[in-house]
Amino acid sequence: MIRSLTPALALLVATAALAADPPKPATPASVLERAPAGDWAPVPLDHLMVMELAGGGRVAILLAPEFAPGHVGNIEAMAKAHWYDGLWIDRVQDGYVTQWGDPDDKKPLPPGAVEKLPAEYERPVAGLAFKALPYRDTFAPQVGLVGPWPVARDGATAWLTHCYGMVGVGRSNSPDNGNGMELYTIIAQPARQLDRNITVVGRVLWGMEHLTALPRGQGAMGFYDAKVKMLPIVRVTMANELPASDRPHLEMLRSDSASFDAWVHIKANRKDDFYVRPAGAIDLCSALPPVREIK
Amino acid sequence: MIRSLTPALALLVATAALAADPPKPATPASVLERAPAGDWAPVPLDHLMVMELAGGGRVAILLAPEFAPGHVGNIEAMAKAHWYDGLWIDRVQDGYVTQWGDPDDKKPLPPGAVEKLPAEYERPVAGLAFKALPYRDTFAPQVGLVGPWPVARDGATAWLTHCYGMVGVGRSNSPDNGNGMELYTIIAQPARQLDRNITVVGRVLWGMEHLTALPRGQGAMGFYDAKVKMLPIVRVTMANELPASDRPHLEMLRSDSASFDAWVHIKANRKDDFYVRPAGAIDLCSALPPVREIK
Repeated sequence: MIRSLTPALALLVATAALAADPPKPATPASVLERAPAGDWAPVPLDHLMVMELAGGGRVAILLAPEFAPGHVGNIEAMAKAHWYDGLWIDRVQDGYVTQWGDPDDKKPLPPGAVEKLPAEYERPVAGLAFKALPYRDTFAPQVGLVGPWPVARDGATAWLTHCYGMVGVGRSNSPDNGNGMELYTIIAQPARQLDRNITVVGRVLWGMEHLTALPRGQGAMGFYDAKVKMLPIVRVTMANELPASDRPHLEMLRSDSASFDAWVHIKANRKDDFYVRPAGAIDLCSALPPVREIK
Repeated sequence: MIRSLTPALALLVATAALAADPPKPATPASVLERAPAGDWAPVPLDHLMVMELAGGGRVAILLAPEFAPGHVGNIEAMAKAHWYDGLWIDRVQDGYVTQWGDPDDKKPLPPGAVEKLPAEYERPVAGLAFKALPYRDTFAPQVGLVGPWPVARDGATAWLTHCYGMVGVGRSNSPDNGNGMELYTIIAQPARQLDRNITVVGRVLWGMEHLTALPRGQGAMGFYDAKVKMLPIVRVTMANELPASDRPHLEMLRSDSASFDAWVHIKANRKDDFYVRPAGAIDLCSALPPVREIK
């Protein structure tokens, strides 16, 4: 942990130093800076959802129809119908989740969305370009990336994992009543015990701090104990329905690129000045493809 | 993820139902409720540090002299001299750390504290009652608990791990200039790549939300870009120097107790109504001994 900003800036400057200086070991940041443009891919707008919060926070969530087509279809129908507008962030449980939607669980769904959907906890590996990480995982025989997604697999079955920023569909005790009326994201350590118990539908790509830096709910399990304490959702829109000037312009490092491989390798084997002992490994949730905003 | 509070309360009620009902599977919460008093241990006051923040937040941090005697001694000397009083939380980087201390890095240390300390990144396993967790870890051959602490080991060497809420000592690029002038805690997923690269000194046992629900710093690496944006530290005190009425009264589940074993086992193998597929494993950072406040 850098003790203050000054040495950190010195390090950043050193990393960008002239070729005449002795070469500095690569850092995750320097790998990203040097990545060719083609190793970044624009985040597609058709499955990108934008949530605008009271106070001006904007959150961009990429949805995963490859893993949860039914739930993603439902959520997109709800977003297109502006079903989420005027609802709330109703739960912030420290160390666990931020959740939003209809706290009363009774707002009627719009045409095109249904109350009950079969669980989409896992899918066949077949048809997926699975790129394995070469490190042990506590929960699954193998983990890796499928396009932008952190994925665990077990033989022929694959599933999305509960990493920081991943978004899932709240449900009650019945596995088939998650429909998108309540969504949540992981705001602390991964909650991998939820994997294959909940339908995971996406990842917060931008604006995560608007969901983490919130007062914690004082009710049971971090629910807010009064509606007046909840942060209102102004509007949820699919990005491609926003005016062009209002759309997020995000790029994500392609997980099938050489730069991604280098970035993962350097994260697992830090040799820049600060580090005295490279970890020799990286966990799946620390290997989510980096995202940048194009201004 | 529970969709709303109502079914969750129903579940809590069901868990406490009369013996005449069919028995409900245990939950982590029910294991804690049933734990005999002797499986809980009072958190000792002599190495408990209390940080009071502007706005009324109180944070209790247990220090680990078993792992970092030099740094803990320094920090305790600084706390006893009220060195931290009037300083700031100067960095909140989303997804990573909250950091506090002297952003200018120049406040003179009090008598009994020194500027440079040898790194305390690891120690011999000998002399530690190491209790292994029976699950794979991505970073170390074996992980487990030593008293209240999450520990990784590699043969004869053991070290504290960067889990959510663990506290470390900021340093610059030189391994021997961490002294406690800047401390940080992990506010998101574990940062295990820092293990054995930084001296870890303790864990936030209470009041973590006062360090997580803060505006993120807008400067490089989440440092606040102006002092006026930093949250002031009113006072940092060792708990046993506080008036008795003002001391935190905390208990922690003993990691050498049968209740702890049951709690870990149930967390790794949830069979209560919500879960359809137990994970079959738990990661070290999800197995930090639970803490409760005695009112």
